[in-house]
Order: sequence, then C-alpha cells, then structure tokens
Amino acid sequence: MEERKMSAARQKANKRISSLKSLLCVGLDSDPDKIPEVFFRAPDPVFAFNRSVIRATGGVAVAYKINTAFYEARGIPGLLDMEKTLGEIPAECLTIADAKRADIGNTSRKYAQAFFEHWSFDAVTVAPYMGFDSLEPFFSYSGKLVFVLCLTSNEGSRDFEEQRLENGRPLYESVLEKVTLWGKDGNAGVVVGATKSALLGDIRRQAPGLFFLIPGVGAQGGSLEDAVRAGVDVNSESAIINVSRSLIYPAGSFSSIEEFEAAVAGEAEKIHAAMKLVL
Amino acid sequence: MEERKMSAARQKANKRISSLKSLLCVGLDSDPDKIPEVFFRAPDPVFAFNRSVIRATGGVAVAYKINTAFYEARGIPGLLDMEKTLGEIPAECLTIADAKRADIGNTSRKYAQAFFEHWSFDAVTVAPYMGFDSLEPFFSYSGKLVFVLCLTSNEGSRDFEEQRLENGRPLYESVLEKVTLWGKDGNAGVVVGATKSALLGDIRRQAPGLFFLIPGVGAQGGSLEDAVRAGVDVNSESAIINVSRSLIYPAGSFSSIEEFEAAVAGEAEKIHAAMKLVL
Repeated sequence: MEERKMSAARQKANKRISSLKSLLCVGLDSDPDKIPEVFFRAPDPVFAFNRSVIRATGGVAVAYKINTAFYEARGIPGLLDMEKTLGEIPAECLTIADAKRADIGNTSRKYAQAFFEHWSFDAVTVAPYMGFDSLEPFFSYSGKLVFVLCLTSNEGSRDFEEQRLENGRPLYESVLEKVTLWGKDGNAGVVVGATKSALLGDIRRQAPGLFFLIPGVGAQGGSLEDAVRAGVDVNSESAIINVSRSLIYPAGSFSSIEEFEAAVAGEAEKIHAAMKLVL
Repeated sequence: MEERKMSAARQKANKRISSLKSLLCVGLDSDPDKIPEVFFRAPDPVFAFNRSVIRATGGVAVAYKINTAFYEARGIPGLLDMEKTLGEIPAECLTIADAKRADIGNTSRKYAQAFFEHWSFDAVTVAPYMGFDSLEPFFSYSGKLVFVLCLTSNEGSRDFEEQRLENGRPLYESVLEKVTLWGKDGNAGVVVGATKSALLGDIRRQAPGLFFLIPGVGAQGGSLEDAVRAGVDVNSESAIINVSRSLIYPAGSFSSIEEFEAAVAGEAEKIHAAMKLVL
C-alpha cells in the first residue's frame, strides 16, 4: 500500500483529530464591538478575550483560525494582539492564518514569508483567482498547509465560483482539480463552506487527498452534523470544521471572566460531543 | 449631456492626471534585500528609502501604491514603516493599498475599515473570487476607489481568469461586467495587466466607466507605450500605470541618498515624458 505523503502541519492536525475525535477549529474573529464588557477591565481586551477563548476550548480544539481582518482593522495594536494570541495557542494545535492572500509570484513570496516565517503559522488560506504562480510560493513550504478557496459559504459564491465553464463544470471544480496537482508532500487543502453541504460530499469524493477546512457552521447557517458527515475522509480524517461567532460569543452577560470561559467551554463541549457522535 | 458620477478619490486622481499629463503610479514594493546600501546607515532603512522615492517622484506621480505584502513580511516593524510612509505621500496624490483582500461580508467590512478608515488609503485592490457580498463592503465607501482584479499580468492568469465560461467568454469578462454594475458613484476600478496589452484595449472599450490600474510595465515586461494607448479612456482619463521595480531600483550603486534620488527622478522623468508623448 502506498504511503500518502503528509506535511508536518497536516500530521500534527491528524494526530490531534484522532486522539480527540474532534474536528473543531476555533475561529478567532475577535471583534471589540462584540467582546463581553468584562474584558474591557483588562488593559488589552481583545488579547484577554482570545486568551480566555483558548483556555476554554484548548482541550477539544484541533486548530485555531485567526481571521487577519479583525486584527488589521485596528492597525498596529490589533496586530500586536494577534502576535500575542499566537503565543497562547497550545503547541499541539494547528494555527491557521485566515488571510485569503495571493498576488504575483514575487509578492506572494512575501506573504508566505509573513505568515509562515515571521508569524510562524502552520497554515494559511489563499485565493485562487490569479492562478498557479500566485500560489506556488505558499505551496513551496512543504511542511505547512495551504488552504485554497474552493466553494465558499457565502451567497456571492454564485457570482463566479459556481459559474459553469465551457466543459460544463463549475469554476470551483477546476480550482479543486488544479489544487490537487499543485500541493507538495500533502500540504494542499481547500476551503469548502458548510452551507453547501449537498456539494461538500461530492467535492470530498473528488479530492480524497486534500485537507478540508469547512467554515460556515453556526452563525452562517450550515449544519454541523452534515458538515462532519460530508466533509470527513475516513482514511485520512483530514478535515476541520470552523466555528467562530456561535462559539466565541455565547448568549448572555457575564459578570466574570470565569463565567464567560465556562459558557464557551460548555458550547465547545456540545460541539465536540456532536462531532464524536457522527464520527 | 449626463454628468458621470465620480468618487472623491477618482476626482482627485483625474485632477492630477490632467494637470500633470501623467498616469504614473509609483509602486512601493520596498524590499530590504533590494534597497541600496546607503539607506542602511539610517535607523529605518525601508522608511528612509520610501521617503527618498517619494521625494524623487512626487512632482510627476499621480498615485502611490503600497504593496502590503512587502510590509507584512517583516511584521509589526514593517507595518510601522507602511504607516510612516503614508505620511510622506503628497496630499494631491492617490494612495492605494495593493492588498488584494476579500472575504465573507462581515470580514470584508473589517478589511475595508482597516484600509479606508484606520490607514486612510484612498483606494484598495480586492480579489473577486468570492463574489458580490465579499466586495460590497468596499464598494459601500462611495468616496473611495475599489480596484477589482480582472486580468492580471502574470502567467497564472491562464489558469482561471482566462478560462472560458459556458457562454464562450472568459471569466475575467464576467468579472468586468459585474464590477461595472457593482460600483457606487464611480468608485469602481479594475486591475488589468500591461503584459496583456492586446486585450487591454478591448477591456477598456467594454468598460468605459471604470478606472483602470495597469501594472506589469517594466520588470514584468509590459510596454509602457502600449499600456498608455490601450488603457486610457480619452473622456475620463481614468487610468494609471504602475511602475515598481524598474523605477525604484535603478541600476548602479549610490554613494549618497542624493545620488539615488537623482537616479530615480531621472527614471521618473523618462516615464513621464513617454506618457506625455502618447497622451
């Protein structure tokens, strides 16, 4: 039987998936407008909030996804929070920069350097529009994971991603096919939204070798159970399901940080239990 | 005759284009590995380099394009250089964040906030793959300019951008058509590479109302004259041509900052003269 090659980042994720029976990726879309008031007593509310979310979910999370937009929106102070947050993520968890970058080759090399070297993320999300030479600098890091946007969870996926090409197949399938060829040592992945669960199973079958990052569960309306069922490759277990808003902003008001952490931990446990049940 | 609506940013650019008879956008792809040694005597080499480039080109430039990758690659210190550089750009010049961002709506809103509010850029480049709701948050700033990737200058444009859709037309034409509808008060633009000058004229004719950002002249091999001829809309003058490496890294070694600035100013003058000749 052929051994499938796997990047170090992918091995790390798979090890965690099998030991925890979890696919949970915690999305740190941390927005000062949504963070509970109790954190504003700390000098660094966003960082304090992230640290609490990580503390509350660290036992069941496979990965943490930092959505760069939420940090860039506040400029340097926001990016300092991102930097400090990275230091709080347990070493056995995958760190993903949800950055959706890509540019001409010499520029993409700089983005890859930013996320893989300077910030030391294990994985990054990238946008496919500009084609192979815009993604190759990311794929050249064979120890990392590169998640290429394929079929996203939003309405706008109809505008281009689902447009049919001359061969009758949608654009996202052409992306899928090419990403399968472009990865190095199993470092390729795709982003497929949980809101498209009917298509997710098809996409999974077409690309058994790819690692799947599945957002769109919770606030965006995708079903967790459907995502687990359709997204997991039973041989490699290579899928993670991102939950952001519905996990990190639990309903209710909190008089202490401990109360908040208990609420998030409870929510994470529920998600973990649902995942275990389907797996 | 109908007055064409124009965003404040576009008016600013057009005013500069007509007063200078220039289309020059200076690309600040400032790379510590390529910056002349003389700048490493300053405490902040990248910032000192940018300040010199701006000083040397300020009289003939319509716009400055900051390629965010080159700053992010060095993390916080790089972004501090970006921030300080913005303060050196003359108020009458357009500032462009070449960021190629886009994500689901609530995330794109954060990117728009980062570039349009926090850093106060006049314009940003965005990637179309995820469709309308991923770009709408940028377009909602009616005073700004939003440049959507259309047909880029790199080889990889063949992988997806030039793929034909079921209707026989390439994907980039579908992007072009939709961007024409999505802009607000004339704040829409597209990125079309100068290396595709045969197609550039066609694209210009299909979208007379859009502002064009044309990269790919110089190091990437596009012809300046062809780009000016094909890219300019004689009615609105709404096009700028980006030059980065061949302008900011003149050949030779420099024993002083003044010498370097003279070389860049000389190169900028040549480009300006060539533009005036064709205009």
